Amino acid sequence: MPERNIIRSLFVETPSIPGNLGKVATAIGMAGGDIGEVETVQVGPTSTMRNITVHCDDDEHLEQVLTAIKKLEDGIILHTVSDDVLRAHEGGKIQVKSRLDVRSLADLRRVYTPGVANVCRTIEQEPEKAWIYTSIGNSVAIVTDGTAILGLGDIGPLAGMPVMEGKAVLFDRFAGISGVPILLNTKDPDEIVETVKRISPTFGGILLEDIGSPHCFEVEERLKKELPIPVMHDDQHGTAVVTLAAVISACKSAGVELKNAAVGQIGLGAAGLAIVRMFQAYGIEKLYGADKSDKAKERLQEIGGEAVADLEEMMERADIIVATTGVPGLIKPEWVRPGQVILALSNPKPEIEPETALEAGAAFAADGRSVNNVLGFPGIFRGVLNARAPEITHPMLVAAAEAIASCTKKGELVPHPLDPQVHQEVAEAVETVARKG
Amino acid sequence: MPERNIIRSLFVETPSIPGNLGKVATAIGMAGGDIGEVETVQVGPTSTMRNITVHCDDDEHLEQVLTAIKKLEDGIILHTVSDDVLRAHEGGKIQVKSRLDVRSLADLRRVYTPGVANVCRTIEQEPEKAWIYTSIGNSVAIVTDGTAILGLGDIGPLAGMPVMEGKAVLFDRFAGISGVPILLNTKDPDEIVETVKRISPTFGGILLEDIGSPHCFEVEERLKKELPIPVMHDDQHGTAVVTLAAVISACKSAGVELKNAAVGQIGLGAAGLAIVRMFQAYGIEKLYGADKSDKAKERLQEIGGEAVADLEEMMERADIIVATTGVPGLIKPEWVRPGQVILALSNPKPEIEPETALEAGAAFAADGRSVNNVLGFPGIFRGVLNARAPEITHPMLVAAAEAIASCTKKGELVPHPLDPQVHQEVAEAVETVARKG
Repeated sequence: MPERNIIRSLFVETPSIPGNLGKVATAIGMAGGDIGEVETVQVGPTSTMRNITVHCDDDEHLEQVLTAIKKLEDGIILHTVSDDVLRAHEGGKIQVKSRLDVRSLADLRRVYTPGVANVCRTIEQEPEKAWIYTSIGNSVAIVTDGTAILGLGDIGPLAGMPVMEGKAVLFDRFAGISGVPILLNTKDPDEIVETVKRISPTFGGILLEDIGSPHCFEVEERLKKELPIPVMHDDQHGTAVVTLAAVISACKSAGVELKNAAVGQIGLGAAGLAIVRMFQAYGIEKLYGADKSDKAKERLQEIGGEAVADLEEMMERADIIVATTGVPGLIKPEWVRPGQVILALSNPKPEIEPETALEAGAAFAADGRSVNNVLGFPGIFRGVLNARAPEITHPMLVAAAEAIASCTKKGELVPHPLDPQVHQEVAEAVETVARKG
Repeated sequence: MPERNIIRSLFVETPSIPGNLGKVATAIGMAGGDIGEVETVQVGPTSTMRNITVHCDDDEHLEQVLTAIKKLEDGIILHTVSDDVLRAHEGGKIQVKSRLDVRSLADLRRVYTPGVANVCRTIEQEPEKAWIYTSIGNSVAIVTDGTAILGLGDIGPLAGMPVMEGKAVLFDRFAGISGVPILLNTKDPDEIVETVKRISPTFGGILLEDIGSPHCFEVEERLKKELPIPVMHDDQHGTAVVTLAAVISACKSAGVELKNAAVGQIGLGAAGLAIVRMFQAYGIEKLYGADKSDKAKERLQEIGGEAVADLEEMMERADIIVATTGVPGLIKPEWVRPGQVILALSNPKPEIEPETALEAGAAFAADGRSVNNVLGFPGIFRGVLNARAPEITHPMLVAAAEAIASCTKKGELVPHPLDPQVHQEVAEAVETVARKG
């Protein structure tokens, strides 16, 4: 879910007189730019230097923001515009590191020949000991064929690598898991399944990532069936977990009882269908779905949801609306019924702006800015790896969603993704269900 | 090349009187055990505690060593026997780590969405930029099918993982390369080639490891031909590089001129044939080979070597003998000619003990204890990755061997593997040849 795609670092000089940063910030804001961090680099007697991180929609929008700053007078100077994001990616974001020191010949003989032979034989005799004496049980392959990278579409596996590395970074930081990107140069479902199966002894789990619809369904289903380790397509179930968590929190804020409510899902792509399944697993019975595609509606009916004719009917019948269509402004304010809970999750522009929905009478409304998969997958995999679970089940995913919701502060939709507690709670919740399983 | 397969840590108490450690060491030595490190843990007024690392051939041999120590009297007590090697392997030896901090929401937006989208698009437009903005150009897959793990044979990929992780540790420590183990659950050459090709976009190079003969030849040849990145089977060419380096040093010590010498290779398995090829690439013309297998002799002749009828003829004709047969005592002392250089490289027992060969008149003799692949592959891959070379050629491998030989101290066979200079010299030598390409 990309938001605003351009991030730049502006190096700006202002006179050391109060009010000047305000002028710059106002100019950026009036041009529609979002300000991220402001770092004061140097405060001199007459002028102050700052690095201002600005988020824009595209290159044209960035130009408008820069022009707005350049128009400022009174000693405000835009010195440089730099791309910190690209710079941060130089050399890649991940590295395979040794966990042991190799300082002496004795160390070398321990980690390599001849010492290692004994470890090999131990595993040969008792294969399950690989879980103890190798990194396999702490490693998750992050597999993509590059067909649905973020909102960018089929840009190929190579161009998808920064996303896979990003996932590996988050695995490391939030769950201590070794995430291993695997880029596949095939889009054929049979070949994807076959290849992942052939390399599967290396890993304790498989995270499928940014694989396009509809072949993502077949790939995930077959791998789940044919492999003895957990497999999860994050764009389906990771998204669904965080969405359910957000809906639980939204209902709490709005005073709506979720389990007896009628829930409508607008958009029945990979994420939308998985969200419907999550609601079912959570125990919701009245589930409606809407999509332009008849094929998508068929899939909904196969899993037991009810397809509605159009959006107006959906808005009429559902108490809670979740939209993941990617179409800005799709939901008209006049359709909103008083007391409805509306989560319009498409990025960067939602199906209806939260303020508009609230004005139209919604009890609670939010966009998808904070609904980030990072809240789910690290803890989910930590939990199943800890339990050595052979699969990820819907009860585990529901437990993950409830754990996320339980960490959410009053009035917020989801917890802060950098809160280590969330990831720990998710892991524990999943592990608990897995061990009961 | 495993040497002695059992390593144990003995926790021994001796009276604090000089000579007692000597008694323990003698007991171990007389029982045929090799002593590794001796760590003095505690020196008290009456007794001293030490951790003594002992290397044995097998469990039975270990028992003999322990019994010998237990028989000692005068207050010498063997308290515990522990398996430090297994303990060191707990949790595996490697981990995928983030190279960047994720401490703020701004960091998260840089390494993950939305910032990452711009990096993806940059690579989509200019694919070669993946080399800059991802870890691909610094990553090497360490691929095995588990069919020839060390000297243990076909014990399967899972039991081979400790070796693959060991290689990854050495890649990290000596070359800063991300080594990524890939365990294949197929032994079929077609499937191996196909699978490695499908996951190849993820990596800057492929190290084939412990893949059995003869299918290792086909797998390596096809991958070299069909992939645009360097591919090397370490058991062939890594071994050959370090062997050539050892022969260069041995000849220097013995005052033999290598380039004009007649060289005999005993044992024409994967390593033996690769050694012959290395000698050819080095410029040696008189090359003899011996092997029990007619198939192996055919392969030798295909690449231009001369097969001899038996070992006696080989010993008669060759000035320099390299043996990699795995058969202890294969070379009879009476066959040794004065002035010969003999490298009997099989572990743990050589084809002829160096002392025996020297007594029989050899100018130089050594076993394979110090001839370790770790001297080669990290620097070789560092060199080709630095140069972005599409393949590893024989001139690069010869340059690597010469670099290793140039770092070898007078009278020694190879440099100390923990000397960082060796790896740097190898990398530079390979990079230089690659850039001339």
